[in-house]
Order: sequence, then structure tokens, then C-alpha cells
Amino acid sequence: MEKNIIRQFDPKTPITTNLMGSQKDLDYFKWAKELDIVSWDNYPSLDTPASYTAMQHDLMYGLKEQPFLLMEQTPNQQNWQTYNALKRPGEMRMLSYQALAHGANSVLFFQLKQSRNGAEKFHSAIMPYTGSTDNRIFREIAQLGNEVASLPTQLLQTKITAKIAIIFDWSSYWGLENCIGPTVKLDYVQNFYHYYDALYQLGIPVTIISIDADFSQYDYVIASNLYVIETAFSEQIKAYVQQGGHFITNFLSAVSDTADNFIIGGRPGYLQDLLGITIDESDALPPDKQVILTTTDHQILNAHTICDLIQPTTALTLAQYSGAIFYHGNAAITQNNFGYGFAYYIGTELSSTDIMTFLQQIGLSTANYNPDVEIMTRSDSTVDYHFVINTTDRSQTINNPYADQIDILSQQIIPRTYELPPFEVLIFRTSH
Amino acid sequence: MEKNIIRQFDPKTPITTNLMGSQKDLDYFKWAKELDIVSWDNYPSLDTPASYTAMQHDLMYGLKEQPFLLMEQTPNQQNWQTYNALKRPGEMRMLSYQALAHGANSVLFFQLKQSRNGAEKFHSAIMPYTGSTDNRIFREIAQLGNEVASLPTQLLQTKITAKIAIIFDWSSYWGLENCIGPTVKLDYVQNFYHYYDALYQLGIPVTIISIDADFSQYDYVIASNLYVIETAFSEQIKAYVQQGGHFITNFLSAVSDTADNFIIGGRPGYLQDLLGITIDESDALPPDKQVILTTTDHQILNAHTICDLIQPTTALTLAQYSGAIFYHGNAAITQNNFGYGFAYYIGTELSSTDIMTFLQQIGLSTANYNPDVEIMTRSDSTVDYHFVINTTDRSQTINNPYADQIDILSQQIIPRTYELPPFEVLIFRTSH
Amino acid sequence: MEKNIIRQFDPKTPITTNLMGSQKDLDYFKWAKELDIVSWDNYPSLDTPASYTAMQHDLMYGLKEQPFLLMEQTPNQQNWQTYNALKRPGEMRMLSYQALAHGANSVLFFQLKQSRNGAEKFHSAIMPYTGSTDNRIFREIAQLGNEVASLPTQLLQTKITAKIAIIFDWSSYWGLENCIGPTVKLDYVQNFYHYYDALYQLGIPVTIISIDADFSQYDYVIASNLYVIETAFSEQIKAYVQQGGHFITNFLSAVSDTADNFIIGGRPGYLQDLLGITIDESDALPPDKQVILTTTDHQILNAHTICDLIQPTTALTLAQYSGAIFYHGNAAITQNNFGYGFAYYIGTELSSTDIMTFLQQIGLSTANYNPDVEIMTRSDSTVDYHFVINTTDRSQTINNPYADQIDILSQQIIPRTYELPPFEVLIFRTSH
Repeated sequence: MEKNIIRQFDPKTPITTNLMGSQKDLDYFKWAKELDIVSWDNYPSLDTPASYTAMQHDLMYGLKEQPFLLMEQTPNQQNWQTYNALKRPGEMRMLSYQALAHGANSVLFFQLKQSRNGAEKFHSAIMPYTGSTDNRIFREIAQLGNEVASLPTQLLQTKITAKIAIIFDWSSYWGLENCIGPTVKLDYVQNFYHYYDALYQLGIPVTIISIDADFSQYDYVIASNLYVIETAFSEQIKAYVQQGGHFITNFLSAVSDTADNFIIGGRPGYLQDLLGITIDESDALPPDKQVILTTTDHQILNAHTICDLIQPTTALTLAQYSGAIFYHGNAAITQNNFGYGFAYYIGTELSSTDIMTFLQQIGLSTANYNPDVEIMTRSDSTVDYHFVINTTDRSQTINNPYADQIDILSQQIIPRTYELPPFEVLIFRTSH
Repeated sequence: MEKNIIRQFDPKTPITTNLMGSQKDLDYFKWAKELDIVSWDNYPSLDTPASYTAMQHDLMYGLKEQPFLLMEQTPNQQNWQTYNALKRPGEMRMLSYQALAHGANSVLFFQLKQSRNGAEKFHSAIMPYTGSTDNRIFREIAQLGNEVASLPTQLLQTKITAKIAIIFDWSSYWGLENCIGPTVKLDYVQNFYHYYDALYQLGIPVTIISIDADFSQYDYVIASNLYVIETAFSEQIKAYVQQGGHFITNFLSAVSDTADNFIIGGRPGYLQDLLGITIDESDALPPDKQVILTTTDHQILNAHTICDLIQPTTALTLAQYSGAIFYHGNAAITQNNFGYGFAYYIGTELSSTDIMTFLQQIGLSTANYNPDVEIMTRSDSTVDYHFVINTTDRSQTINNPYADQIDILSQQIIPRTYELPPFEVLIFRTSH
Repeated sequence: MEKNIIRQFDPKTPITTNLMGSQKDLDYFKWAKELDIVSWDNYPSLDTPASYTAMQHDLMYGLKEQPFLLMEQTPNQQNWQTYNALKRPGEMRMLSYQALAHGANSVLFFQLKQSRNGAEKFHSAIMPYTGSTDNRIFREIAQLGNEVASLPTQLLQTKITAKIAIIFDWSSYWGLENCIGPTVKLDYVQNFYHYYDALYQLGIPVTIISIDADFSQYDYVIASNLYVIETAFSEQIKAYVQQGGHFITNFLSAVSDTADNFIIGGRPGYLQDLLGITIDESDALPPDKQVILTTTDHQILNAHTICDLIQPTTALTLAQYSGAIFYHGNAAITQNNFGYGFAYYIGTELSSTDIMTFLQQIGLSTANYNPDVEIMTRSDSTVDYHFVINTTDRSQTINNPYADQIDILSQQIIPRTYELPPFEVLIFRTSH
């Protein structure tokens, strides 16, 4: 409605609004259809993991599968957090390049000049309320501005692709967190993040998609806590696996239809044949209690929050509950051969580390990857731009995949083994 | 009023309503007078002690001193707790027999069939929303139904008797928990439970009564936190002790009259002569602080929450405060000889274990009792039904008091030393 | 307004009202102008430090720099605290003399007789609701009454003087605690107390003053968290230092004008030239994180809550941040020579102990002082009354500064080395 009013007077200027990452209130996949370009505000805390910020960028990119605008970030500390830490030297620059690496086509700040009064007067700005430019923050922003101005404009036309997709679904987010039982500890974004983080730690890029996406371009499609399931999706995902795709889902998925009625026939709803399992009971664990899982390749994992008691019909068991619990021996993780593909079910909440172990068990892994140095690629039809980012405040030794090529920022040749200073960034251009 | 309306149209059908155990809002002794039969809903959590559930049953029995209906329990997990654990195999059956052992004449469930929607859709049921009967829970209920159907109907006419009574008094419950000072940590039911639990751990059955009961049939009458005291009660309890009874009460008892005015003459109100003490001061301890008590038979106890500084007038001191506190040496527990009986006062909050020590000091004890195996008896004029219940998920070795007799459920002869499986139940019938 | 109405009918009776120490709602320096005499209610808890109670008395004295009335204290336990401990034998008497030592001209109690009903019926009184006088509390009060009656009336005319003043400023109290950022953990009274307590532990008496006081009589003026600063004050404090005074202030001082606008020119507002520093950035630390400070005389202190990154212009650095933090080496505590005096800035929150170290670094210290024994002096033009008070429930060995003089209370000569019993009090009179 607002857009229509604007368009009566201005037919051309791109329309957007500040989105807020994985917030709960609004289905951004729906809203993004109304926007000409996605934009969002990135306000990590001192203790926000780099992979969590990366996930938020990827979600914003995924809304339209197109580059977005970084509309706001803070040059230094916020004022509205509980304890507002200063950004360390280089940290704001690193966060800016991380945004570009994940698809941002801008680096904008809140705010140009700090106010003298009001609720946000302790919020940092490009310039303090004194107007001074002789300070650390202004110098860091001036340097960044000069660097960004010298980047090739070709970068604005590049896109990001991946062979693994993770579904983010606001209907399931709402359904999961509003259900009364079996536990109050159901956090859609946190569980989603565990899967994202596992792939991030393995150095495997992902695209975040909606349930309406075309799955055929992905080797793997992951859906965490897909609580609400539509029949259209279930048909699509079955066709995808039938033709050789891999589908991974987990506890409290395929529970309800879009009116939040339990799906007739029991859990996991329309996916029973795809996953080759049924589930009658789900135990809820208090936060201080874990159940041990043992995998068929002799790994030990820890089950949290929910333990589905899976009854395999056609599925193989990849892990089972063990230890002093009445359902020891019961299947906890399963794999089902369906057509030319495979469908996996993880009946419990796992940590990022345990999901990495699972992913390696089913063949997804990378060798010698240092997860503290993020590597992302933006491409057009002819060239790739590779961002190599030390996300930490410590030096990191890297095994440079773009050895002996020129870093666009420093204009220097970077060898294979290289000591990347704290928060430092390299950008390489390669042809394909 | 509701009952009168029903009785205009139906003169015969017994009238009841779902009560809720030791809830605070309503005086169930008063309400029970309006009911033809007491019924209640039993929803223990994973960590509810067996003795706490037993106490709730005994309170419901005590309302009319008659068998009651178990109106609701859940076949498996609830949905409205913080973390809703599954019931372990045999646990629902054990809880059902525990209800029967404490006077239930029915075992009913919420709910026959799980709903597909609404606030309680994650609540378990006899059948899941799929209608399936091929699952653990349905099988356990079907087995229980067959067993209960084969129990002798004579059991419905039996009653439960005990030589020890504990007074539950809603006026005191309200008075104690609404008083402002001397500490916010005043929990009527918890303190009551400590006395109940001490007797439970000793294997001594009790009847829970109101202040209006006939005390003459009991060897001991216990009143915990009898904050509000009526003159009628005080005369009755004095007559009871005069004639040889034993009365035990504790801190913040006999404080106020029924208008919640402090009783003229000081604490403990109308019971000063019966107890042979006065009390001028009561210290309040933070939860992390305890004061040591030493008893005259050289036991060490821990005082919590409130420490009454008792001044004995005619009473003997059974325990005194000790350690680094200014009132060390002051009486903490007293015994007063009154007529042919004794009146005891415990001026502080004690744990169940410390109350057991006190009860043993005054002569109440049982030898070799395993508190994890509950033994309860229901009787009519000719026979006794003895329930022997392993309330735990571990095997328990029992010293069977009904050695070499037939267990009604298994139709097998059970020897004296017997390994009772997890959650297993035996029922013996003896004549008298 | 109320005072004017009373004065129409009663031109003479002194007018007062019960003040409440360092409460937040009202600026007591303003209200005290309307009172003929200050009075207040002193209700320490079991765990209130003696120095905190002393601070409250000194604040009440400072409102008019005149003796005040102790309007209320409780003879024994309160009822409205979470856990209301009994006062130990001698504790009420000690607290009464502590009030007198800090300028009280009365010792009054809430309440004469305990009520039988109502919200405060569990609050102690001179007499319990029974009216009994045969109890510990009444006896302690009767003894105290006899002692106080025999004290010389000359004491009523005495005043308290000190060479160190601490500014208490309600505008800054409100401004600091209402600002949004840089941390939620901003507690004006707690930070003020750290400075008071450091001086108390060193045995150095202080006067608590408003920003409008005459500073010239003090060797040192301390202003903690002087968030709001008026130009009049800044001119006055500069003149004071110019002429040889010492001024100490700390983080988040001189931030805003009286309309809570940041002061043009940056922090610390109008005091940049006096302090010889500017501040561009302030880090906020979570409660579990500290930054180490090293002083120029090789002491180690711990920085809490806020770390100002001080840029000295003319100031010397007395301490700098160190350890694994990006601003290690940056000034944290500074000293500026201004005219004939010195101005100090402490850019972080320090514990009382660390402030003691700082005060000793700048030359303020006392030898062999036992902080558990409070020594306070009230004087008129000819004599001094010295109160020596063991504020603890343990005996304390004192190095009596009034050796071989007569204690007014016991009428005994007290030697230099003396074992002062728990909560015991000595009063010496000397001429000058």
C-alpha cells in the first residue's frame, strides 16, 4: 500500500525498508516481494559469533537471491545493549567486508553525527557530537571509504551461489515457538543456526531459501524444525529426492498443517514415506540433562531438548540413544533411500559440533579448513571475487587457496602460507 | 447452589468435582461436605517424590475419610510443564496402583484421544490423535484395565486407618503465607510435607485431618505451622493430651486468632500451658544460612528459615541451638508433660531427615524399612488388602512382611526376601 | 506549602519530616532548606556495612551541616525485609551511639508497642504486643535510655568538621541512572559509597556537601559521577583548585548540562582544562570482566564497568590500562597541576580497596588504623567528644588515641592498648 502511493509520484527510485535479520514478527520472504532491493541493519554484539552474522547476511541475500544494501551498522559501540563494548581497531572494517562478501552492495552507517540529547545520545556515530574528525573511529571509516571507492564496480553485478540450501520458514518459526509443549525451550533461530554454523565451520557455503524455492540446483536441502508443512512442499521435496537429491530434516518437523492441526496419520506428517519412519513419542529433556547417542561409525553425540523415539519403517539407523535411559537402543538419526536420493531425519537437538560430525558421517567435509578465516566468493559470468577474512582479533595462519595472486586491497602478491593479521581482509579476482 | 439445582432434576447421581490436592485457593474440608464423593486430578512431574504424591492422595482421602475417585491422570507426558518428560514403562501403572493403595476407587485418565489442535494438543492421551492402538502407552493401559477389572470388588468398600494424624488447615495456610515478615520464605505445604515425608520414610501410615476431627483415635496428632488457632481446637487438643495423647507442633503455630490478630498473652497463643513454653523472639535466616541444633541424645540437626527463642516454663529441652550464634544454648525443641500425655514444640524448620531423627528420639521408628517400596493397607471388617509398590525405576530388594502368601496380581507366592522389579506392584489379602 | 499552613497556627515548634537517606526521588539538599531540623529513619539490614550506615548519617548531617534527629530505628528485627534477622545483643545500642557520633541529637524508635494486626504486626517494638517489659529488648533500651540521660547536654551543641568533602548531587544521581548506555550497570550511590568507604577504612572523616557548598575550608573535594555539571560549579571548583585545593572526580562526570544535553566541546565538559584531559571513547565491561590497571608506583588495580580512554593534554598519567585489551597503555587515572592545586580524574569504577590505594598514592593515609573500630569527634569551641565504637560482634584490640583518659560511659580510665568487647562504645572528652 505504501509502495503504491509512492509509485504514483515516483515511478523509478528503488523502494526498500530496513529489515532486521531473523526477527520473528514478519515473513520477510513475503515482504521482499514488495521491495525493489533488500536492505537491513546489522548490529552484532561483542560476543556475536562471526558465523551468526554471516547467517543473517545470507538470510537477507536469500530473500531475493540478490545483492542487498547494508543500510545500518554502528561505527563503534551501540547504546541500547546491556553492556556496550567498543569495537576494536579493525573490527568495523572487517564487519564491513564480511557484509560485502555475503552480498552487500553498500556499507552505510547509523549515524553521521552523534546527537547531544535523546534516547540514543550514547550511540556512536561517524563523528561525535563535537563534530571532531580527529579520532580513531573517523580515521577507520575514512580509510574504509577510500578502499571501497577503489573496488571494481563489476563487484556490484556479482551473485553468490552454493550447492547446499537451508530452508528458513517463518510459518514454522511461529508454529514451533507458539506450541504449548513438549518443552518451553524451543528456539527456531538457534536450531537453524546450529545447522548453518556446522556448515560454516566446515567451510561449505550455503544459500538460505524459502519453501517455495527451486531445489533442483542444490545437492543438499536442509530444513530444521519445519514444524508447519504444506502438501505442495512435500510433493516437491519428494520429487527432488526421487531424482537424486539429499534432504535433511529434524525433530518437530512435519508436525502441523497450515492451520496448525496435527497432520492426520501422525508424525512426521506427509514425509513418513520419504523419511521411512514414524514417531509416536518424544521425550523432553531439561536443559541440564543430555542423552548420549552412538552412531553406527562409533561416534558419540549428545542429544538435547527433545528425543524423538523413531520407529524406522524403511530407513536405516545412523545413530541410536544409549546410556541409562529407557529408550536406549531406539533410533535417533535415520537415513532412507528414496528413488535416486536420500532423506535423513535427526530426532533431537544437536550442537553445531555434533552436526558437523553427522555431516562428515554422510560425506560432507573439507580438509584443513580454519573456521576463523572466512572465505566467500561473489561471481559473475566471467570472474570470481574471493574474500578472505580473518574474523578474529588474533593473527591466523592461512593455507591460501589463491596462492601467489594479487590481493586487490593491498596490491601485493600473497603466498600460500600466510600470516593474516587480526581482522585483516584479502580480496582476489580469478577468471573462470 | 449448583448442587441444589442439579438435585431438583436428579436426586440420586453422586455429585463431585475435580479437586486439585493441596491447592491454596479453597478450603477443601469445607467443600468436601458438599460433595457426595471426593475426586481429584493427579499430575506429578518427573521429579515429584513418591511421598509427595502419596501425601496428596492422603489429603484427598482425609477430606471425607472415605475412598475417592482418581478423576484424571495422564497416560504419558503432560504438555503444560516446563519440560514434559515421558512416563517410563510401568510408571503409569505404578502411579495407578499407588492411587488405589491410598484410597482411590477409580483410575481415570485425561484424555481418551489426543486432540489435533488447541492449547492441549501436545498432551498425551489413551490414544494419539491418529487413533492408533498399536503403541506402548495403549498397551500399558489395556494391561492395567484388564488387571483392575479382575481385582475383587470388595476392595471398593475398604477404608484406611492410621494411629498418627496430621492436621491440614487452610486458614493457617492462608495466614502463614500472607503474613508480612519475619521472612518471605514461608511455605505451608512444604513444611507440612516435611512431617508427612518423615513418617513416610519411616513407613508409618498417617491420616490427614482437619482441626475439627475427633483426635481420640490417634496416638499422635501433628500440626505444622498452625498459624491460626481457634479456642475450640485448643480446648480439644488439651483434653486429648490430658487423656494421654501426643501433640507435636512447630514454629509460627498458635500465632493469630481467626481475625488474624496476634493472640493476647503472646506466642504460642492458647497453647502456652499445654506446651509449657513462651516465645519472645524469632530469628529469620536467609536460605543459605543454617544454625546447628544439638539434641539431648547427642544428635546434630540443622535449623532453617525461623529460629524461635523458646523460654521453657514447665517444658524440658530436647534440643538447643549451638555454634556461633548469640542464642546458642537457647531451647529449640521442647517436650511438656501435660496430664497423661506429652506436647512437643519444634521452634524451627527441619528437613524430613531431621524430623525423622526427632521422631526416633521420641520413640517413633520402624526397623529395616526400605522407603523406596511403599506399603499401604486398605481394610474392611474382615480382611486387609496390602499394596507393596516399588515406586522407583530400579529393582528393590524387599523384606516382604507377607512372606509366602499369594500376590493377587501375579497369582504367585512371594517369599520373604524378594527382588521387586522397577515400578512393580504386589497385592496381598490377609484376614484379621 | 505545608510548612506555611502550620506556621499560621504554630510560629515556634521546629518543623521536620522523616527523610530516608540516599533515596532517589527527591533532592534533599533542596528540601532541607524548608526544614528547621533534619530527621531521618535508619534501618540497616544484617549485612549492611557499618561504613554504609555511617555514610547515610553523614549525608543527613551534611544536608544542613547541623545535628539531626534519629527519628526512627527498630529496637530489634524489621518485618519488611526479605529475611528479617534479630539484632544481636548490644547491636541496637552500638547503632544508637553510631548515630550520635555522626551528629544525631536524638535516638527515637519505631515503635513503642507492637501492633496486634496490620501489615507491620511482625515489626519489633520497645514493647511486644503483650505489653511485657521482661525481655531482652526492653532491658537493652532501658539501659540505653539511662546512659543517654546521663550524657552531658553540651553534646547537643557540638558540630562535626572534616578536611575532606564529598559532593552528593541528586541531579547527577538522576542523570547517571536514567541515561541509556553505555551500560545498564550505573549505580550512583554505590560508586559514591566506594569513595566514602575508602576514606572510612583509612579513618579519615568527611563532610558530605552539595555542589553549592563553600569549598575553601576543605583540603580535598571529591565528586563521583558528577554527570550533570553547572557552569557556576565549574568556575567555583577551578577557583578552589587554583588557590591550592585538591579535586578528585571520575568516569561519567561533567557529561551533561542541566538540560541533559551533552556539553559542547566533549567530555569532561567544562572541566577539560582543570583536569588537563579529553575523552573520546568509553568502553563498557560486563560485570564478570575486569581490565587491569598499573599505577606509576607499580600497584595493580582492577577497572570495572566503564573504561574511559583518556587523552591527557596537560595531565600526568598516574595509572594506565594494561593486559590483553586493545587500549593497553592508555591513561586511566590522571593528575593535573592547576594553579596552586591538583585535579585528579579516575576513568573507571574502582573498588573501595583500590580507591584506598589511589588515595595513598596521592598522599592520603593513616597508620595502624583498625577500620572495625569507628572513631568520630563532635566539637564545640572548647571541647571535643570522641566516640570509639566497635561496630562488630567480635572483640577488637585498639590502639586508643585517648590513652589513660576517662570513658564517660563507664567512668573508667582506658589504657592505650585495650580489648574493646563486641559492639562496645567508649566516649572521651578532651579540651582544645
